[in-house]
Amino acid sequence: MLKFSKMQGAGNDFILINGLEQDMDNLSGLAKKLCDRHFGIGADGLMAVAHSEVADIQMIYYNSDGSRGEMCGNGIRCFSRFVFEKGIVTKPSFQVETLSGIKEIGLKLSEGQVKRVAVDMGPWNFSPVEIPVETNKPEFIREPISVEGIQMEISCVLMGVPHAVIFVDRINETETVQWGSFIEKLKIFPKKINVNFVKVVNERNILVDTWERGAGKTLACGTGACASVIIAHHLGLCDTAVNVKVAGGELQICIENENRIMMEGKADFICDGLYYL
Amino acid sequence: MLKFSKMQGAGNDFILINGLEQDMDNLSGLAKKLCDRHFGIGADGLMAVAHSEVADIQMIYYNSDGSRGEMCGNGIRCFSRFVFEKGIVTKPSFQVETLSGIKEIGLKLSEGQVKRVAVDMGPWNFSPVEIPVETNKPEFIREPISVEGIQMEISCVLMGVPHAVIFVDRINETETVQWGSFIEKLKIFPKKINVNFVKVVNERNILVDTWERGAGKTLACGTGACASVIIAHHLGLCDTAVNVKVAGGELQICIENENRIMMEGKADFICDGLYYL
Repeated sequence: MLKFSKMQGAGNDFILINGLEQDMDNLSGLAKKLCDRHFGIGADGLMAVAHSEVADIQMIYYNSDGSRGEMCGNGIRCFSRFVFEKGIVTKPSFQVETLSGIKEIGLKLSEGQVKRVAVDMGPWNFSPVEIPVETNKPEFIREPISVEGIQMEISCVLMGVPHAVIFVDRINETETVQWGSFIEKLKIFPKKINVNFVKVVNERNILVDTWERGAGKTLACGTGACASVIIAHHLGLCDTAVNVKVAGGELQICIENENRIMMEGKADFICDGLYYL
Repeated sequence: MLKFSKMQGAGNDFILINGLEQDMDNLSGLAKKLCDRHFGIGADGLMAVAHSEVADIQMIYYNSDGSRGEMCGNGIRCFSRFVFEKGIVTKPSFQVETLSGIKEIGLKLSEGQVKRVAVDMGPWNFSPVEIPVETNKPEFIREPISVEGIQMEISCVLMGVPHAVIFVDRINETETVQWGSFIEKLKIFPKKINVNFVKVVNERNILVDTWERGAGKTLACGTGACASVIIAHHLGLCDTAVNVKVAGGELQICIENENRIMMEGKADFICDGLYYL
């Protein structure tokens, strides 16, 4: 039997296991089995707690298809609440080692429970070479593209992973799928791209619907929420502290300085259990 | 916290709770919450164990959308293994009260574990009025219909719920969706219909792919497997004891006499857990 918890952040759901107290052989195969929605518990990904030499704790993340994931914004909030409430980490501010570097975590506590989790999502980059997007310009902002005969303006930023942002008058989930799947594979994006459709409500509130590269439309994308705020703020469309409504919930994004963007949101326990191996 | 198990039978997955030892207020709302695949544990349905005045135990079944379900062939196998291995029922043959009558259960045990579960799926009916299907004929067997310009032969039987069976040269999941969704809503079926595409391999082996009325293509449909064998046997295409391969696993169907068809198959525990209410 394998001890696990299931958690969710903004509708992204995860299986968490404590690798400090139980075996973690073949996490890739385990992720596929545990995350299967009919033959397993069912989740978007598996996160295992491991010892770290460079931070307070290490997060090992696998997608439901068994591939290793570098980082996951909604996932790390769940991971952080898990390690704190399970007594693995005992302080409310700590560092988590991930494949995309060390992440700073700040917990908002009330009566010993984690009410919200803030994550330093690290620096971003407008450089087309880094994103990458093929262009001769120094930045790829509000560039015109044609999507199935419709003219759009697209802006790109690297926020851990490549992101494109398109401002729309209203969020339309059908168009997110239709346009997102098309834009993801445009030749100008050699590593493909995540596509965010953004409606600015006012300076402190935006709506974001994301088409994730390789995963399709999801209930929430943490890096997509950050990328949307970075582009919107860059264009003077919103403040530095913004409430982002996504399909699966809400995230608070705050640009603290030129290199630091914080994402804050909830992380909820769904169940604790024992899985029949 | 609510104590639960997650189980699956041929890929149909269920949450099971023992209502004899914990509160069961608003099972419809609970089913929606528990079965949600991102915000809950995730399952096709919820089954609660309740006391019965007329059988050894009662199965209360709710679909993931919160609607009450009468019976579920894959579900009752999981329910039967659950009540036996959790010590709620202590004999290997027993009766389960469901909304569609009392079902006879036989467990195949090995070292105290339930290896297979046999369920008496009850009588069937070829009467067009009962199924229902609009026709003047006494039975609706091998009737020609046109589906998107393609000529097919369709046969119908009431096996708890209305079923149509179409024999094909090969199972094609895309066609199951395309043709199934079309046939389900034909005007001749006033209560709609479940549609089974059946390939006869030989007298003792068939493949079945089912489009379920209101649910779409599923990994397995117990009554659909029974209906397919009844029609195939009626037409002399197979034996009385048939191995049925479905998308999510295998089922053994045995016509015992004119009024009794047994379905046998596995039921597996996935996990035991505590759900945060």
